[in-house]
Amino acid sequence: MELLKEAILTRGKVLGEDILKVDTFLNHQIDCELTIEMGKEFAKYFGDKGITRVLTLEVSGIPAAFTTALELGVPMVYAKKIESKNLSEDVYTADVHSFTKGKAYNIRVDKRFIEKGDRVLIIDDFLAKGQALGGLIDLCKQAGAEVGGLGIVIEKAFQNGRDRYVEEGYDIYSLARIEKFEDGRVVFK
Amino acid sequence: MELLKEAILTRGKVLGEDILKVDTFLNHQIDCELTIEMGKEFAKYFGDKGITRVLTLEVSGIPAAFTTALELGVPMVYAKKIESKNLSEDVYTADVHSFTKGKAYNIRVDKRFIEKGDRVLIIDDFLAKGQALGGLIDLCKQAGAEVGGLGIVIEKAFQNGRDRYVEEGYDIYSLARIEKFEDGRVVFK
Repeated sequence: MELLKEAILTRGKVLGEDILKVDTFLNHQIDCELTIEMGKEFAKYFGDKGITRVLTLEVSGIPAAFTTALELGVPMVYAKKIESKNLSEDVYTADVHSFTKGKAYNIRVDKRFIEKGDRVLIIDDFLAKGQALGGLIDLCKQAGAEVGGLGIVIEKAFQNGRDRYVEEGYDIYSLARIEKFEDGRVVFK
Repeated sequence: MELLKEAILTRGKVLGEDILKVDTFLNHQIDCELTIEMGKEFAKYFGDKGITRVLTLEVSGIPAAFTTALELGVPMVYAKKIESKNLSEDVYTADVHSFTKGKAYNIRVDKRFIEKGDRVLIIDDFLAKGQALGGLIDLCKQAGAEVGGLGIVIEKAFQNGRDRYVEEGYDIYSLARIEKFEDGRVVFK
């Protein structure tokens, strides 16, 4: 998606070996028009997959998941990773190992919001090693729902998170795929 | 806002004395069309206030803040309350006392995303005692930005969170104001 690549090049910032900071438009301050275009792009790609719900993980997946669900005309659901006293006990849960944090955390979704018969489109803002994606797929499996696709805003392709999902037969689509960082600049695949 | 009141009555659930569960459409599963209507309603009310940014607090304020900012054609910013390794050191911070959790937590926003000269519309999903709102106003003050208005999706009017902001001269607008819960049902003001 050219608009997104341009935003990454002009408004993103490479920090060190493997961090891309995009808080100017993706995960702290949000460029709403750009996010609408992301939703249209995901909806165009996954529009014929019979998607019934869009699932993401709080927090930074929410805007792009919202615009995708809006475009597809289906509800958006965000799995929780933060303690919440209002969450019911009747939830599916999965553990996600975070390499950056060096520990596992727990994600949860209310059983009413992913159901047998659903075809779920999973959206996330970043794909690195693919751990969060694995947790979200796990929640869908527990619910007896089908995963209709995996949509990623920015894929750090050099971390190979995509490979196992391709092997398992999932349809995965990234709006921007980064091959590498070179001298503090982003090189797209 | 009639559509929202109808959603609260038909899809919300009163728990105990003072909890309204609206996870079917507002803060776990999201009704995207309804959220778009919320944004339009806020934009209609605050449209002539010269708003330059919409500010909310992660997580559940994000969808309504997004649609409002989209409608107003300005960026949306969410203050962080969760630990984030990607957040810079150069932030404004405020402490928010949570009555439900019985403790204070810290909220933060990068200094690049609220600036002197900004007119900020603050959006949140719930107003109870108004503590979170106070923290967000505090961040704006530190930045030297003006608060152009306070927009609330659901106000529990019986908790009087509105009063001090009205006294301080803020323009506060709630899409649905709840007078009380009676026999497990919502009574609007």
